[in-house]
Parts: sequence; structure tokens; C-alpha cells
Amino acid sequence: MLDTYGGFCLAIHGGAGTVPVAALKGAAAEAYHAALRTALKAGWTVLNQGGPAVDAVAAAVVELENDALFNAARGAVFTSAGQLEMDAAIMNGADRAAGALAGICGPKNPILAARAVMEKSGTVFMIGTAAEAFLRTENIQFMPTDYFVTPRRLEALHLELTRRAAGMPDTRSDADRHGTVGAVARDAAGNVAAGTSTGGMTAKRPGRVGDTPVIGAGTFADNATCAVSTTGTGEVFIRFTAAADIAARIRYAGQNLEQAAGDVIAELSAHGGDGGLIAVGATGAPVLPFNSSGMYRGFVGVDGVLSTAIHREAFRQVCQ
Amino acid sequence: MLDTYGGFCLAIHGGAGTVPVAALKGAAAEAYHAALRTALKAGWTVLNQGGPAVDAVAAAVVELENDALFNAARGAVFTSAGQLEMDAAIMNGADRAAGALAGICGPKNPILAARAVMEKSGTVFMIGTAAEAFLRTENIQFMPTDYFVTPRRLEALHLELTRRAAGMPDTRSDADRHGTVGAVARDAAGNVAAGTSTGGMTAKRPGRVGDTPVIGAGTFADNATCAVSTTGTGEVFIRFTAAADIAARIRYAGQNLEQAAGDVIAELSAHGGDGGLIAVGATGAPVLPFNSSGMYRGFVGVDGVLSTAIHREAFRQVCQ
Repeated sequence: MLDTYGGFCLAIHGGAGTVPVAALKGAAAEAYHAALRTALKAGWTVLNQGGPAVDAVAAAVVELENDALFNAARGAVFTSAGQLEMDAAIMNGADRAAGALAGICGPKNPILAARAVMEKSGTVFMIGTAAEAFLRTENIQFMPTDYFVTPRRLEALHLELTRRAAGMPDTRSDADRHGTVGAVARDAAGNVAAGTSTGGMTAKRPGRVGDTPVIGAGTFADNATCAVSTTGTGEVFIRFTAAADIAARIRYAGQNLEQAAGDVIAELSAHGGDGGLIAVGATGAPVLPFNSSGMYRGFVGVDGVLSTAIHREAFRQVCQ
Repeated sequence: MLDTYGGFCLAIHGGAGTVPVAALKGAAAEAYHAALRTALKAGWTVLNQGGPAVDAVAAAVVELENDALFNAARGAVFTSAGQLEMDAAIMNGADRAAGALAGICGPKNPILAARAVMEKSGTVFMIGTAAEAFLRTENIQFMPTDYFVTPRRLEALHLELTRRAAGMPDTRSDADRHGTVGAVARDAAGNVAAGTSTGGMTAKRPGRVGDTPVIGAGTFADNATCAVSTTGTGEVFIRFTAAADIAARIRYAGQNLEQAAGDVIAELSAHGGDGGLIAVGATGAPVLPFNSSGMYRGFVGVDGVLSTAIHREAFRQVCQ
């Protein structure tokens, strides 16, 4: 029998933090599990057909971006000025090709836009309206701004601006403050890839960029070590080059993926970094560590069983 | 006698590549050496007064930015659309605080603007016009666009656009294509810091961001390992997290600074990465490796002797 994780596999996240257990049960929890399964299935289908990891990552992230439950593309959070500024990145571990975008609004799926940067621009990292202009020449689907706007995120902005105006303490849960979606995959040929997409933090300072599009911080992939996508307090993840540090521990310190990812989460924790990550190595199962109360997450292997979880409960497993 | 490099030290670069030896001699070479000495002296003065490494780095980079010889601030290169889009970053190894900017035009000294991001914004990375708006509230000196414009860079843009229109091969030297300035320092207390500033690449795609403001790629500092500032083909430096990889080799593989920096340059070379870097560790002298024909560079230690070089000749040494 083929080892479930000896072959291809995929892991996803929909942001770390999450609301308290008591506030997320019943229908709300079911909606998150279902959304995670939809994304897992999209990526798994690519891998099961022998497709490349980078395609599987893109397919999974597209589903998470399209679902307004998550803070990426549709359902993205607003800046303090009431604008949408999205960041995304994708990286192919086979050749370390990468594409990243920051401060854009328009492409229906920023992860596909990041892929266009990787494959078509001759560069790795593009920002702002000039990036949007490039993407319009690359057959990337754009949507009007109101497609991305959701009442939930407008309310979160209103509440936060009201709080700030009143000088009250910040009692929001992590999930209200930030959120990110991401995927990592290893295909049947052994190639790994990572992708991440986010709207950033609610009421963030206009122009602020988090770790998502910073290669080596929020997104990284190299066949020789691992593929990583992170979610959390981006500033700390940038300063500690979170994703690249996992790869470095594997490459230079001889750690395995689980040790390396766990040690990086511990180091981030010690420096105020709150969040989590998903990672997959050249062999074995994905790892999904986090130091917050929860992380919307899931994984799937060759057998196609869709495993999802939100808090620290056992993974819920559903056969396709 | 105090070891010259057992105490404080500083290294700078003004971009890698450089024009062929034959084209850079006499008065032109003298001007570069003099400009490098001015920057070294500015940083050394801070260190010699017991000031912190991050202040020394900023002081040195300010001088390089102010000199139109180098591609940063005044003298920055143009995008293919004839615009100026500058990137900069600074990082303090004492606490791994960092500030980075991409796609800005206005601040006289982008390195000081990056420092304001680090110290005042509550974030690490800001981009575009929103970043400029923040900087205008932070007592950062702005200059009109024509301050940054130089005939040399306008001519380089014109020549490159003409070449592209004619479909001719790209025969420019590296120095005509790109350039960056940077500094690394270790102060008397043993803290390290790094700073980098650039106008990017001549006729670059609007919205393109190179490695300079990507923490872990073009700029990195951590007292436990080293401080690094790079210059070269930014896309490769991003994909290989060049600066952070040097730190990782020291931290996890037990390499010394010279080995780590040399191995990273070799790996960049093997993947089409052209350029160089400057780095300083917790002890010992700075290292300044490069794989291009030259790199405008210099260093100074406790004795105040200003050492500068352009190609692979012996360093020219001048006492203050």
C-alpha cells in the first residue's frame, strides 16, 4: 500500500488566531470546514491527475480567495482609509521561481496575478497601480471593487475606527485583526510549491505591507528543503524571515520539517509573533503548527481524505 | 594595541558591476574614490564618537544618496515610463527592528525615510504614495522631483528605450543597468546594522521592486550573526534570500562570515545572480565579495584609515 504522505499532498490555511471556541460552533464552524474542504479538493484534484504542485497551490488558494469567509480577495479587510490593498505571492520549489504582489486591488484572484508576475513579467515583485496595469495586459480577470466588499469587513473597520477614536483598548480577537490564506503542496514528481494571499490587517495603515509577499518571510518554496506559507503578525514574520528560516534549519542544521517549523514558531512566539504556518517537505506529511488559539487549516494526501480543523481539536476527516 | 577590526567598523558599497577598467580611470575614478571616502568618514565619525551602528549606517548611506554618482536618491535611474521609483531598507541587529520602503519618490534620503518606518509607523514595510503621505507627517525632508533627475540617467534611459525599439542586443555594462548603495556597521558595543537604498534598474518595468527593501534578501541584520547589504540582479537575490542565507549559514552551519558570504555569492552566481554584498559579523573585519567585474566599495575600522576600491585592485588607503 502506498504511504498516504509518501506521494503527493497538500495543506492549506485560512488564517490563524480564530475567535474563541464558544463563538465558533454550529453552522458557523460548519461553513468554515466546508470551505476548507472545497479548497483541499480543488488542489487534490490537480495533484491526483498528476498536475504540478504550483498548479495545486493556485487552485486551492483561488477557492479560499473566492470565499468571503476568508481575508483574501473577496472578503478582504479594509485599510484605515477604507481602501482594499491586497498582497499575494507564489513560489515554485522546482526552480525557485517566484512572483509577488503588494498593494493591489482589482484582480479577482491575486494568487493568479502573482503567478503572472512569476511567469510573464521578467521580475519577481511588483506593487500598486503599475502592477495592476501590467496585469491588465496579461489576461488576468479583474472585478469591480464592490465584488470584494463584504458587510462583515465594513463592520469590523467601523468598530475598529470607533474604538480608536474613543481611545479604548484593543480587545479584538486575532481573527478580527488579521487573516491570510495559503497553500503548500508536493506533487507526485516531488516538486513543492507555496502560495499565500491576504487583505492584510483590519484598519491597517495605508501602504503597509505584511509578510505575505515577502519571499522568505510569508512565502517560500525550494525542492531541496520545503514549501511554507505563513499567517500571523506579519511584521515579526518579516524580521525573523520565518519561512526561509525553516528551510535553513533543514538545510544547514539537519532538522526535520516538524522540528524546524516548531522551533521557528517558538522563536516567533518569544518575539511577539502570533500566528502559524503550513509546510511540506520533500517527503512525509505536511506540518501545520501555530501558537494562536486556532488556525483554519486542512490537509489531504494520496487517499483523498479531507482533514480540517479550526482549534486544537482532532482533525475532522471526510472522504470524497 | 587594539585590533583594528576587534572594535567598531563600517563597510559600504555603491553598486556592483561597474564599467570596464579602461573606461574608468583618471578623474572619473578619483571622483568615485572621493565619494566613497566621504561616506566612510560620515559613518566612522558616528562610530568613533561611540554612536550606534544604525546611526553610522544611516549617515554613510545619506552621503551616497546625496551624491549623483550613485543610483540612489539624487542620481536614481528611471523606469521605462520615465518615472523615479525608489526602494530602501534599514535594519538594526540589536533588536531586529526593520523599516523598508518601495516605490517612493520624494524623500531626499530614502534611508532616513525607511528609518522613520522602522521607528514611527508601527509597521516594517510600506509602499507607494501612501508611504509618502505617512512620511510627510514624520518630519522627513522632501525634494521636488527635479532634484533627483540627472542628465546621465536620462541619457541611459533614452539609450535603453532606443535599443529596445530597435530590437538590438543589450550590451550595457552592469553598472548601466542597475546600481545600489548600502552600508553595514558594527559599533563599539557590538551591535550591527545594515542599510540599502536604490533607484532600481534603468528602464525597469514600472512597479517592479528589487531585493533592496526585502528584509532577508537585500538587507538584513542580527547581532547573533551578521549585518548584510547587497547589490546586483535583485530577482535572484530575492529568490535565494541572499542576506538571510548568510546569517543562516553562520547560525546553523557554523560557517564564519567570509565562508558564508563567499558561498552565497557562489550560489547566486550559479543561478544567474550577478552582483555583490558587504557584511560584518559580531567580530572581525567586514567582507566585501562580488562576482561582477567590480563593486564600488570601501571599509574603515577603529584606526580611521579609509580603504576604497572599484575593481579587483588592492584597496587604496587614505588616512583621515
